[in-house]
Amino acid sequence: MVQLDFEKSGGLIPAVAQDWQSNEVLMLAYISPESWEETLRSGYATYYSRSRKALWKKGESSGHLQKIRGILVDCDLDTVIFKVEQAGPGACHTGHRSCFYRAVAGDELQEVESAVFDAEKVYQVKK
Amino acid sequence: MVQLDFEKSGGLIPAVAQDWQSNEVLMLAYISPESWEETLRSGYATYYSRSRKALWKKGESSGHLQKIRGILVDCDLDTVIFKVEQAGPGACHTGHRSCFYRAVAGDELQEVESAVFDAEKVYQVKK
Repeated sequence: MVQLDFEKSGGLIPAVAQDWQSNEVLMLAYISPESWEETLRSGYATYYSRSRKALWKKGESSGHLQKIRGILVDCDLDTVIFKVEQAGPGACHTGHRSCFYRAVAGDELQEVESAVFDAEKVYQVKK
Repeated sequence: MVQLDFEKSGGLIPAVAQDWQSNEVLMLAYISPESWEETLRSGYATYYSRSRKALWKKGESSGHLQKIRGILVDCDLDTVIFKVEQAGPGACHTGHRSCFYRAVAGDELQEVESAVFDAEKVYQVKK
């Protein structure tokens, strides 16, 4: 298994999920050594949830799985890019395809991409 | 100024530098509140170097500046994407355009992009 440098950042490193075809960045989350192993083993993006302190197979409850189509690692071995095939309409818990749906416009944030699914229905959360 | 959530991660949050035209991810580094302010003020990507513990204007010594063409923020306000116009041939201290020039191939790493400049000359470091 390819060894990454988890120590520099105290055990977790960032993983950028990027659409394998369009190159759109869909989200950024963190991986632990166990997430890394599980991602490689399963072929599906598996992160570490900092809030739940647990392994997090993306899409396990929503169905919005991220099938791994390739993995890039950076020069320092402390960041990875998951090239993913995103199942379902989107990756973000707000109902947007990408978590990066807002742009800085002066002192404000401007929504630059509309929601593509009903987050309340999928995640049973209030928006 | 747009406020980001620096507290959740202990003061630094990741910034993904993405080519504003091709969408190629060039690098990932970290920003502090001061970096964020300086990036917005100057219009050039300014990170926080964890090793040097100092503000780091990307390209200040190499000339490989990153002009900000847009900034996206994520749903949780704890990650940003700098859409940049990369000056010079590349962003990586290894001489590659992107820090993500290697792919996971089984248990090995495979170089998928060749170097585009002589890192020894630009950075005065041994490769």
